[in-house]
Amino acid sequence: MITLHHCVSARSFRPLWALEEIGVPYELKMLPFPPRVLAHAFKEVNPLGTIPLLEDGALSMTESAAICQYLAARHSPGVLDVAPHEADFGRYLNFVHFGEATLTFPQTLVLRYTHLEPPERRQPQIVDDYARWFHARLRTLAPLLAAQPFLCAGRFTAADISVGYALMLAELIDLNERFAPSIADYWSRLRERDGFIRAMRAQEAAALAQNVPTIPSPKLRP
Amino acid sequence: MITLHHCVSARSFRPLWALEEIGVPYELKMLPFPPRVLAHAFKEVNPLGTIPLLEDGALSMTESAAICQYLAARHSPGVLDVAPHEADFGRYLNFVHFGEATLTFPQTLVLRYTHLEPPERRQPQIVDDYARWFHARLRTLAPLLAAQPFLCAGRFTAADISVGYALMLAELIDLNERFAPSIADYWSRLRERDGFIRAMRAQEAAALAQNVPTIPSPKLRP
Repeated sequence: MITLHHCVSARSFRPLWALEEIGVPYELKMLPFPPRVLAHAFKEVNPLGTIPLLEDGALSMTESAAICQYLAARHSPGVLDVAPHEADFGRYLNFVHFGEATLTFPQTLVLRYTHLEPPERRQPQIVDDYARWFHARLRTLAPLLAAQPFLCAGRFTAADISVGYALMLAELIDLNERFAPSIADYWSRLRERDGFIRAMRAQEAAALAQNVPTIPSPKLRP
Repeated sequence: MITLHHCVSARSFRPLWALEEIGVPYELKMLPFPPRVLAHAFKEVNPLGTIPLLEDGALSMTESAAICQYLAARHSPGVLDVAPHEADFGRYLNFVHFGEATLTFPQTLVLRYTHLEPPERRQPQIVDDYARWFHARLRTLAPLLAAQPFLCAGRFTAADISVGYALMLAELIDLNERFAPSIADYWSRLRERDGFIRAMRAQEAAALAQNVPTIPSPKLRP
């Protein structure tokens, strides 16, 4: 049985979404955000103190984009996955990494220095520097997404989950207003997927049942 | 023929190192750092303006850890790669992503706000926040690396290149003094590899031949 440790709408939404797209059974353990501060016991199972943590037998994984790739290759070959022999394999890998390393990390700086730090430690210059960074990088996807419905391989893959979560986070922290039209349309297509809606409902139900704070932004309710 | 666009000792060192470990032929095109500022024409081949850019036929890739994974799976199956059927596949993916998303991005903030920004835009608080972040995350590898020579699969893989480059960058920006002993030993083992030494020599020779600035830190000369 797969166990996913998750905070509402945090990066761990990526593996949750992948699990719902694939349809494998899993247990969802909810934590308050940020778990490093609010859930000290969690460090006993994950010394990093970060989410996601995915446990699959003896395996523990902590990188959200890597987990999507793992679930895709191990649990849905040919569906969410793009295999090494396929023409778009390199493009697929690039987008899986791009969604996190290039599109999500800069947003965590915006989130941290506008919302999470106490007022005296907020940093408007950093917020501005990394909001610009995010928009400049995201903009490069606009021509591609004007020409095709998904990022690669002619189908929805784990790469769309990786990049799609970056768009979800952008909406949560109000960076979505400058989305190019083709990117806004892509994000609409993603959030209308059954798998996405099931993942949103799963986290809401688990948050309620386990008594942790629910989705911070009403904009993201399905 | 593979072409790699590279700046001396920048993230694009990862694919260079992988190419030398695998032994496939490639062309190395050197750029001054940062290329977005100093090599405007580069944006015509890579709209992101970032390095690395790897071109392999019609494929263009820009994420350094993804490129290592691609080269490993396409050009050295069973050597630098860990395949989906192997027991350590999930661990491998996790470390490939961890090296970049968790260990390198925080260091780019230290580099940016100590060296790259003009004095009036430097941010000691950010430098301190993300140096701490880096050390806290890196520390979690110490027990593992005290017990085994490489990160996973009982052999040197692309995961070691991903994490190894983060250690190389740490040395360049003076974050290496607080390495735990097992991590310092691991880094010593990595930089003594023939593939690493060949990659260092390849970038020095190409930088000289193409007249771009050479390795910024004498500490990293092989």
